[in-house]
Amino acid sequence: MINKVGREIPDELLAKYGKEGYQGKNYMDGKYIQKAAPKTRRCEKPAESKIVASIVDALKLCGAKDGMTFSFHHHLREGDYVVNMVMAAAIEELGLKDLTIAATSLGKAHDPIAAYIEEGKVIGIQTSGIRDKIGEVVSAGKLKTPAIIRSHGGRPRAIEGGEVHIDIAFVAAPTSDCVGNCRGIGGKSNCGSLGYAMTDAKYADHVVVITDCLVDFPNMPASVEAIDVDAVVEVESIGNPKKIASAAARISQNPRDLMMAEDVARVIAATPYFKEGFSFQTGVGGPSLAANLFLEKAMDEKGIKMGWAIGGICGPMVELLKKGKVGKVIDVQDFDLDAVNSINQTPNHFEMSASQYANPANKGAFVNKLDYVVLAALEIDTNFNVNVLTGSDGVLRGAPGGHPDTAAGSKCCIIVTPLTRGRMATVCEHVVTVTTPGDCVDVLVTDYGIAVNPLRQDIIECLDAAGIKHVTIEELKEKAYSLVGRPDDLEWEDKVVAILEARDGTILDVVRKIKPFDPDKN
Amino acid sequence: MINKVGREIPDELLAKYGKEGYQGKNYMDGKYIQKAAPKTRRCEKPAESKIVASIVDALKLCGAKDGMTFSFHHHLREGDYVVNMVMAAAIEELGLKDLTIAATSLGKAHDPIAAYIEEGKVIGIQTSGIRDKIGEVVSAGKLKTPAIIRSHGGRPRAIEGGEVHIDIAFVAAPTSDCVGNCRGIGGKSNCGSLGYAMTDAKYADHVVVITDCLVDFPNMPASVEAIDVDAVVEVESIGNPKKIASAAARISQNPRDLMMAEDVARVIAATPYFKEGFSFQTGVGGPSLAANLFLEKAMDEKGIKMGWAIGGICGPMVELLKKGKVGKVIDVQDFDLDAVNSINQTPNHFEMSASQYANPANKGAFVNKLDYVVLAALEIDTNFNVNVLTGSDGVLRGAPGGHPDTAAGSKCCIIVTPLTRGRMATVCEHVVTVTTPGDCVDVLVTDYGIAVNPLRQDIIECLDAAGIKHVTIEELKEKAYSLVGRPDDLEWEDKVVAILEARDGTILDVVRKIKPFDPDKN
Repeated sequence: MINKVGREIPDELLAKYGKEGYQGKNYMDGKYIQKAAPKTRRCEKPAESKIVASIVDALKLCGAKDGMTFSFHHHLREGDYVVNMVMAAAIEELGLKDLTIAATSLGKAHDPIAAYIEEGKVIGIQTSGIRDKIGEVVSAGKLKTPAIIRSHGGRPRAIEGGEVHIDIAFVAAPTSDCVGNCRGIGGKSNCGSLGYAMTDAKYADHVVVITDCLVDFPNMPASVEAIDVDAVVEVESIGNPKKIASAAARISQNPRDLMMAEDVARVIAATPYFKEGFSFQTGVGGPSLAANLFLEKAMDEKGIKMGWAIGGICGPMVELLKKGKVGKVIDVQDFDLDAVNSINQTPNHFEMSASQYANPANKGAFVNKLDYVVLAALEIDTNFNVNVLTGSDGVLRGAPGGHPDTAAGSKCCIIVTPLTRGRMATVCEHVVTVTTPGDCVDVLVTDYGIAVNPLRQDIIECLDAAGIKHVTIEELKEKAYSLVGRPDDLEWEDKVVAILEARDGTILDVVRKIKPFDPDKN
Repeated sequence: MINKVGREIPDELLAKYGKEGYQGKNYMDGKYIQKAAPKTRRCEKPAESKIVASIVDALKLCGAKDGMTFSFHHHLREGDYVVNMVMAAAIEELGLKDLTIAATSLGKAHDPIAAYIEEGKVIGIQTSGIRDKIGEVVSAGKLKTPAIIRSHGGRPRAIEGGEVHIDIAFVAAPTSDCVGNCRGIGGKSNCGSLGYAMTDAKYADHVVVITDCLVDFPNMPASVEAIDVDAVVEVESIGNPKKIASAAARISQNPRDLMMAEDVARVIAATPYFKEGFSFQTGVGGPSLAANLFLEKAMDEKGIKMGWAIGGICGPMVELLKKGKVGKVIDVQDFDLDAVNSINQTPNHFEMSASQYANPANKGAFVNKLDYVVLAALEIDTNFNVNVLTGSDGVLRGAPGGHPDTAAGSKCCIIVTPLTRGRMATVCEHVVTVTTPGDCVDVLVTDYGIAVNPLRQDIIECLDAAGIKHVTIEELKEKAYSLVGRPDDLEWEDKVVAILEARDGTILDVVRKIKPFDPDKN
């Protein structure tokens, strides 16, 4: 079938996974789903401790066996050691195979997993982010089943709805007590929020906490609660602190980024949601983050304050909180040390779960009340569809993350991106992969002009009234092609290597195996 | 069958409810259960507010119909208006019938419900506390099905295990925002912890928040989260503040209470768990609460501090926290204004859910790590079985509460009670109803002496070593009977009016209809 964003989704794939193609924003709204639930071990007999000697012992205790799904979260980012440690213990020490990794995101830190995929030990990957060596081997068709890519809101939806059944969830915990009450704060691998781990721990049959800092019972307030934890393993180190959180997310000094950031703030200031108590989320990319700066100026000029901000949080937002310019900050992940050192410590800086953040199948996630989100893009096409997953070569090297969730939930979703990157047009005819559907995207800000989605005539009127120039997205695309040329179409094989679920669980797009480069054709 | 505490449980009742009789402490330990889960409405479309005009509107929105189970929590205690408001709306305005009330506790505030029971509109009661008019009509056999009485840990077990399916959970919220993030703190009906409501909200198909104080979004940190809430209703008042929390739980000045409290502290100080970092829970009854005072003295003498305390918390424990004599206080309910004004405000005073507190079917509740609990009793028999549910006349007028949970989980469970109350022997041959099995009770402290459960030879040795005199419980019983006489046996009809579940879900006892008083027999 051809779905609502014009992508051909193989019918046999829809049948096999029991899925529909994407039908447009809010298609599932108001429907009921039966939530799933894990099995759990009854621990009524007092037990002093759940500490076991090794990851292998924890795996045995939880009945680890071939074919299981293990879950992980990515709060340790590029510093994470836990995924590799667990998979090495399972595969190399216990000899397990046919395993599926269900991670909130995977990155360069997990390059060693690529070998397990090639060996056929890991046969499934479910994730938001997929890049580097894992992205390459999956794109090369070496994973036995198509990778399933979900947004940060789509993941808890799928878990809570029983589409992903986690046999064992692994929690990388900066601190834990002897029975598994975990916090992201304290210890030597301090990462702040543990929001993504919260849903996993509630829905997994077994939960193993891996920590490098045991603290006295009770470790409160606990992000992951002991009542859900089977075993605690103390290891030398769960991650490389230098890569867990950068010293500080620095605001770009690049003049092009600053110009775009200023335009973002102008667009925001021209729309009716920009009033006392408005809400906001931004990414950590150069121009997105820089928008904070200009937004503060616009707030001061209008004499208003931000009510609340959500994210992915980093230093500049913590700064606004400390200055009293935002009322509350609620976050699912902390990107830098300023944020890590603020959550649950600065008054009004709170933690939330992935489900609270962005799940489209609960009774109302935070994103549903968001006024503005400012997001980046690898590509955006003339239907405002965004790609943040595949590179211009068609290889998996990105992550939908919270992009589709915040775009869908917010009243005004602004994409900010340079018109071209190197020799590639960012604004294009058709994105390689649709990761955020165009019906969720409202405004595009580039270094060559602003375009508004024709679905949002109200915003067009606002910009006109404010005297903010804007063009059609086709004009921006033509400008881009005029600068760097129109790219050749990528050539694909039939094999689907990754399935991109829309946040509501319908199929938004598929990624096929890229055709090997044929020098004879050139 | 005759169960492990010697009670005859009708076989047909066991068959009907798919239950076993009580088999002894920790019988279920290590078994697996499949958790249940609610259905949920997918709210992906941004919605500004879930506020509806009335309880009737909320009931309609949630599809309220005959035969449903409504849940309530008792944090507003004797001041609660919400149970009566909701049931009046359902029965009198919507004409619903065959309803079941699943409450964490019911009390005098809910006397009007007795009429709905007599009219056959309410046909089921599931609760911990049952007393006053509801207790009377149920004891008189007027409820269509037997009331099911559970402990505070047994309730989340039953809910999570699917034995109780909540159609609509009602949350009495001192503060809520427009989408249902609730806190027990703030507003005019400030009650502190909302721990009992937390499990209900996660497992109910629908959740309605009833508040008398709407606050700005987001109301964080939320005890009940908006992601689980269908509707918010603002009412004039959810409760009578004077009855929600007493000004302060005063420590008894009664010399008999103080003497018993001192003996409790002596027993604690003589046992090996009394060391740096020990953990403790006490009830709010006279001698139980007074134990705090003597315990503090014993801690000072030994130069140790309490690691953590759980409860049901009131002022004296908050005082210890503020003095730095206890490390952390974690509570599921606040009994007085000192506690209400401390939770989540005094550093290291935290909230926990009912499941975290006491559920015997999760992976380890707080009670499982408890060193000492000091509890009251209406009666205790020579097998150390305790009754805190039925009066000496056989009528329902009490609540197991957390009694069976803390008794089972703690390393040393001390019951403190005067030997007689009025003309009734507290220590007796057979309690009217077994609410806490004797295999969970370790020490009895009375005003006429101390007795230790023969199962705990280790504690007997400790008391001997410390020179603390103790007698057999039979001696205490004989002393009691010598003072007030041996009571006549109660006369019962066959009809079972209440089923008392052990915390693990087996049947501990049943309460039968009391035979009407026959003046001819006297």
